[in-house]
Amino acid sequence: MSDIAMIRAAAARLEGHVRRTPLLSSPFLDEIAGRQVLVKPECLQHTGSFKYRGGRAAVSALDPELRARGVIAFSSGNHAQGVALAARQFGVPAVIIMPADAPRMKIDNTRALGAEVVLYDRAGGESREEIGAALTEARGLTLIKPYDEPQVIAGQGTCGLEIAEQARAAGVERADVLVCCGGGGLTSGIALALEAEAPGLRVRPCEPEGFDDVARSLQEGRIVENAQASGGICDAIVTPRPGDLTFPILQRLCGPGLVVSEDEALQAMALAFARLKLVAEPGGAVALAAALLRPEAVEGDTVICVITGGNVDAAMFRHALERHGDA
Amino acid sequence: MSDIAMIRAAAARLEGHVRRTPLLSSPFLDEIAGRQVLVKPECLQHTGSFKYRGGRAAVSALDPELRARGVIAFSSGNHAQGVALAARQFGVPAVIIMPADAPRMKIDNTRALGAEVVLYDRAGGESREEIGAALTEARGLTLIKPYDEPQVIAGQGTCGLEIAEQARAAGVERADVLVCCGGGGLTSGIALALEAEAPGLRVRPCEPEGFDDVARSLQEGRIVENAQASGGICDAIVTPRPGDLTFPILQRLCGPGLVVSEDEALQAMALAFARLKLVAEPGGAVALAAALLRPEAVEGDTVICVITGGNVDAAMFRHALERHGDA
Repeated sequence: MSDIAMIRAAAARLEGHVRRTPLLSSPFLDEIAGRQVLVKPECLQHTGSFKYRGGRAAVSALDPELRARGVIAFSSGNHAQGVALAARQFGVPAVIIMPADAPRMKIDNTRALGAEVVLYDRAGGESREEIGAALTEARGLTLIKPYDEPQVIAGQGTCGLEIAEQARAAGVERADVLVCCGGGGLTSGIALALEAEAPGLRVRPCEPEGFDDVARSLQEGRIVENAQASGGICDAIVTPRPGDLTFPILQRLCGPGLVVSEDEALQAMALAFARLKLVAEPGGAVALAAALLRPEAVEGDTVICVITGGNVDAAMFRHALERHGDA
Repeated sequence: MSDIAMIRAAAARLEGHVRRTPLLSSPFLDEIAGRQVLVKPECLQHTGSFKYRGGRAAVSALDPELRARGVIAFSSGNHAQGVALAARQFGVPAVIIMPADAPRMKIDNTRALGAEVVLYDRAGGESREEIGAALTEARGLTLIKPYDEPQVIAGQGTCGLEIAEQARAAGVERADVLVCCGGGGLTSGIALALEAEAPGLRVRPCEPEGFDDVARSLQEGRIVENAQASGGICDAIVTPRPGDLTFPILQRLCGPGLVVSEDEALQAMALAFARLKLVAEPGGAVALAAALLRPEAVEGDTVICVITGGNVDAAMFRHALERHGDA
């Protein structure tokens, strides 16, 4: 099981590799939210999302002999790039199984980072698990799961250690911490870190409408699934259900989930553009959208939110700016 | 005259107010440039550009009694916002004289930061100096010049102190440092800081075609003017000629200037979007454009470049992405 000791150990292994992202703010966003808004831009992390933290934490924790045979991952794009970069840094092969309809930039980047990308047809019913199992067996690869893996959760938790330190430096002792949530790896990792280092900060998972499995699972007290397993524009955080390892942590430590529409995610992208000079992808903008557009559902004088990624195609970004202009 | 002592004093006054921007990189940009590219994103600075450094440095250096009467500045937008925010933080009035055709976002932001904005018709031949002189006399305001002012140069120089420290931490001892250059306040301030703190780093001013007064002045060994005083999309760094205070510093310390086209600035904006998840304005992307697209004119294994600002209207940003897509 992941715990604070494992997160601290991951932080030590990641030292000098992971980028310590800043905590940003804008008086214009404070005005919209009606409280101080502090933004942790993991879009500025290596590979453009927080996923590099977990990817590097997991790859660096492997037994060197095992690692040398290579790693394999399933991902629509951000975990893919995180694992690909970590593998390249260790000089070991990476095979990434990606849906053929993943954003173009994510597929291209994963290849450019040296991974062998195997595309599968999500709509056509190909089983990525079967494809992966065959490759794993044939080559002795180690599977790096995107969130239900203790070392991945620990790696993502290093983002929480930074938030704890940075909030303290900003004089913030109590706040809701809004995190874009798919399978819950980042959300549970941050929650574990804050439990130990900043217990006045409460994590709130944020999701898009139609993919609010975590919010509903927390509400019902048991794991429930989404009606659809994929679709929409928030590909980075669309998962069928919370993880078996992450859900108990979310249940123990997190406040109620927040849900926003896809259009609100686009609006948050336009606001991050105008006010923070940051590029957020739709799934990475969900927590900012909740912070700005669901102020009545948030508690406290300050809200902290994580922009989890910025890997968005130019066409989608233009679309966000066309709809919400200078927001 | 500005010197390293004045820059260090400015840094002490700015401590806790100015954001220490990170030094970012991307393997994709390294590949384009054929060397390591380190990017200092001053678009992440408060008000979206480095200008807050100089604005706050100048306003904080004023005699409190004089300061209480208020400050005045002429600016197309970034200096405007820097001075407006600094004045608001000190609780003193700010009057900003802006051209009526400045980017909409810059005018709106300056007003939103509490400044009284007076627009003048650049094309119609109204003299901003006359407008300003009348206001200054009537209200006892202090003029904060955008670059030919020692405390402003010192404030911008604090960016150079950070570059010196961050380059050292990254193990970089020799490199060209490319800086988007208008009147030369930032360029000369960084050059003074590096002279003292990192003498192996050489500053190179970067300008758009048609407004390459600094490059030509350095080449000719005397101040020469641009044919046009305004125009083009790089409004942030368009000035008629180098400053009287800045030029001797540039001449003493900087390497030859670099010149890129407006379209290359747009391409650099698209690359900053795709590879750094940053929003750069055209004038703020000129140094990145030179780093990536003029590799033969740059020396060394590493190039450092400053993205000086990100205050760009959504329409112009969409235009950059339409032209250069996922770059």
